[in-house]
Amino acid sequence: MPDTLSYEQAGVNYDLIDPLKVAAQRAAAATAGNLGAHGFREVKASRGESAYVLDVGPFYLASIVECLGSKSLVADEMNKLTGRSFYDGIAQDTIAMAINDLITVGATPLVVQAYWAAGGSDWFGDAQRSQALVAGWKAACDTCGVAWGGGETPALAGIVEGGRIDLAASCTGLINPKSRLSVGDELAAGDAIVLLHSSGIHANGLSLARKLVERLPMGYLTPLAGGTYGEALLAPTVLYSPVTEALFKAGITPHYCANVTGHGWRKLLRHPAKLTYRIDTLPPVPPVLAFIQQHAKQDDREAYSTLNMGAGFALFVKPEDAVRTLEIAEQLGVPGTLAGRVEAGEKQLLIEPLNIRFSDEDLQLR
Amino acid sequence: MPDTLSYEQAGVNYDLIDPLKVAAQRAAAATAGNLGAHGFREVKASRGESAYVLDVGPFYLASIVECLGSKSLVADEMNKLTGRSFYDGIAQDTIAMAINDLITVGATPLVVQAYWAAGGSDWFGDAQRSQALVAGWKAACDTCGVAWGGGETPALAGIVEGGRIDLAASCTGLINPKSRLSVGDELAAGDAIVLLHSSGIHANGLSLARKLVERLPMGYLTPLAGGTYGEALLAPTVLYSPVTEALFKAGITPHYCANVTGHGWRKLLRHPAKLTYRIDTLPPVPPVLAFIQQHAKQDDREAYSTLNMGAGFALFVKPEDAVRTLEIAEQLGVPGTLAGRVEAGEKQLLIEPLNIRFSDEDLQLR
Repeated sequence: MPDTLSYEQAGVNYDLIDPLKVAAQRAAAATAGNLGAHGFREVKASRGESAYVLDVGPFYLASIVECLGSKSLVADEMNKLTGRSFYDGIAQDTIAMAINDLITVGATPLVVQAYWAAGGSDWFGDAQRSQALVAGWKAACDTCGVAWGGGETPALAGIVEGGRIDLAASCTGLINPKSRLSVGDELAAGDAIVLLHSSGIHANGLSLARKLVERLPMGYLTPLAGGTYGEALLAPTVLYSPVTEALFKAGITPHYCANVTGHGWRKLLRHPAKLTYRIDTLPPVPPVLAFIQQHAKQDDREAYSTLNMGAGFALFVKPEDAVRTLEIAEQLGVPGTLAGRVEAGEKQLLIEPLNIRFSDEDLQLR
Repeated sequence: MPDTLSYEQAGVNYDLIDPLKVAAQRAAAATAGNLGAHGFREVKASRGESAYVLDVGPFYLASIVECLGSKSLVADEMNKLTGRSFYDGIAQDTIAMAINDLITVGATPLVVQAYWAAGGSDWFGDAQRSQALVAGWKAACDTCGVAWGGGETPALAGIVEGGRIDLAASCTGLINPKSRLSVGDELAAGDAIVLLHSSGIHANGLSLARKLVERLPMGYLTPLAGGTYGEALLAPTVLYSPVTEALFKAGITPHYCANVTGHGWRKLLRHPAKLTYRIDTLPPVPPVLAFIQQHAKQDDREAYSTLNMGAGFALFVKPEDAVRTLEIAEQLGVPGTLAGRVEAGEKQLLIEPLNIRFSDEDLQLR
């Protein structure tokens, strides 16, 4: 094994997944006509975005399903090492994966459904863990102002590994009024790029983070930033919907939003428009991400192409709204950075302080 | 091991799952107030029903997430034995789990999201299987008139078993006009019970069906009804939404619907009302279910309490609508049986031809 630990070496091969994704997206797009029989239509620009949007007349309807990923494996290991259940935070992470995607299109999240697929009935027999999951799930719903509608708690021995749980959340919301729709139609040169800070690794890059443990003599208990590596990894993902809701109430409609998840900062290139995104100011890098970059011996390009590196959520707003956007987020306990601007030019992301350039070829998801 | 094979012996322990379900349902119910800030409210009667319903003004919004369960394990075994991929049917099963639940409240399903969590990236590398999954998913969406919005295709090594896939679907729909809401307010003595037929085991009872293979010298290739046991198990679940949509167009609004899934016929007792459900005519038992009952040496009570035994979906309609309901379903290729009626009396299900009685104590999910 070479010294540098890339995401593929950590077990995630996007080359194998993405062709299926493309095939599925094409088949999915071909079903849009089914809505005509109901008198509705899809918002075509939402295809390939983080949430799917439907025009149902008085408002738009947005929906999504999202997976936590492998972060629960860290919680399981840390539980063995510390006796503490981290499933309250894991619940927040799972909901954040869905909510933070849904709000990118301008939706107010309204209902969350829980998908908790355990490796066997006995998973649910651990009362401390189950109660933490329930309590954290409820708290995250309350933070986001959504109703927890229900869900599914199957025991899937033979599919989910024994002692493990596959966590996901679906979310439905409305874009109301319809002018809140933010699928990028108005994204344009001159827009400011506001990056809302992350709390740490959030829920993307965990395969890499877990692989790294093999290189650390103290493993998850390696001291880091006043705690341990494991604790730092388990900082719950920031829920950004209170910010987007407050922005709407303040009269600010982002032209576009990008949830920074898999593919790291390459997600800033998500929109198909031919535009240049120039970053001149970087958000602070959370200690846990600096630690991962250092120990995985990643260069900046590798790190920013897989991890959020401090940027949890990107808002593309009118330049005159940028400062107020930051103030509103800050008031809600979510600091941000006015990181750069959108410019005319070829499709690329320029991270100037690090001399990094990502082009469209670096993110082929559509 | 005793000769009789019960559902618990097959590895599903509802006693361990249901207390968590109850705790989650209580916490979920406490989040309903969050909707007030958006000017909306939940339809409280939908708590504990198969789909969650929200009043958003001009119409009701219904949403759900549902899991396939372990049926994909049968497809995997049959693939080894026959070389054929059954994932087109598995896709339909997964969508049916969500759609058939969503329509119970009177909703028109509009959007389906795919949740395909594989045990590793290599799952998606099998092109035949992946293409079958995509094609079957699209075909089921087309049958139900829904748009496939998108989804999630994570590779979850360490959580999902290698070579396996955890399949689920979320679905969002509208109840429009609002008079289509069928959460049981109008369920009453005198209503007819129409049971739409199943195509086989559907996607509930597979743990038992798989366990049974150990008792069969020829396993999944045991001859059954002109094919094999494995093929019979893999008959795709019937999609019932074309029937409910056609009923609406014909002016028939069911008073209540029950999707017959886990807990078998006990699901007919789902509604909290104090009513007696008297069954005088049984739907034909699909050969695969008769086979399972026989080889698992289950008595009728055990079989009807865990398997659908031919009844895939129950419609509770005005007595004068019963015959027309059957005609409409039959025209769509979904035969049914006018099975009995709702009566005043204690909460119980009486399956008279088999001398079986289930009471409320047999179904504690709320």
